[in-house]
Amino acid sequence: MAKDIFHETVKIALQKDGWTITADPLTLKLSKRKIFIDLAAEKLVMAQKNNQKIAIEIKSFVGFSLLTDFYHALGQYQLYFLALKKEYPDWTLYLAMPAETYQILQSDDLLAEFLGELQLHYLIFDTTKQEIKQWIN
Amino acid sequence: MAKDIFHETVKIALQKDGWTITADPLTLKLSKRKIFIDLAAEKLVMAQKNNQKIAIEIKSFVGFSLLTDFYHALGQYQLYFLALKKEYPDWTLYLAMPAETYQILQSDDLLAEFLGELQLHYLIFDTTKQEIKQWIN
Repeated sequence: MAKDIFHETVKIALQKDGWTITADPLTLKLSKRKIFIDLAAEKLVMAQKNNQKIAIEIKSFVGFSLLTDFYHALGQYQLYFLALKKEYPDWTLYLAMPAETYQILQSDDLLAEFLGELQLHYLIFDTTKQEIKQWIN
Repeated sequence: MAKDIFHETVKIALQKDGWTITADPLTLKLSKRKIFIDLAAEKLVMAQKNNQKIAIEIKSFVGFSLLTDFYHALGQYQLYFLALKKEYPDWTLYLAMPAETYQILQSDDLLAEFLGELQLHYLIFDTTKQEIKQWIN
């Protein structure tokens, strides 16, 4: 499977911000069963800066439907969160999302509230400048 | 958009179990923005029995990837949960899932734990007998 189109963008943005990429990709032990093999297709990037350790799920949100892409990202985040806690308990998981996407989601009242309630960590990046725009914890 | 292939199956199963279908479909106010219009394509069924009121998200899980289908169902459930709480605070949301699907997900250690942690309500149905097999709260 082709890497996410903003995979390199997010790596560059992290490096500009002083992070060292320590794993690309990180493959979590999710399942050995064939029926779940698609799990293995999506991988995380790990980065470190001083004592901070983060794992990043990178999403481009370029699919047919923004909501469908978001549901997918959300489901993966929640499953990865559980898997990461087992294998790498001291790493924090972030969902990397283009600034435009975050803005669109936030422009809707219900979705903005939904984002707030989910308690995910977001890394919002500027796709043109290839820079980190905002960390949301 | 075509209704979910098990839409009627779940309705029949509920009726056999003594439920009255009170809304089919229930359209929640999710968003008026065109970009989120796909939200409107998926609808809930509402049913009542004595004083119990439930809203059901029906999923067939017949897509290419079980996990992708599950992520989608999960994301929708969480968003619907929020919307339902606002408009119909005394209704409980259930995700209707074929027994085969639930069994496959449960057969994987990590996914079984994941299902447990999510705190969703499931209505597991038998696709052949068109009956409710299990309520999971």
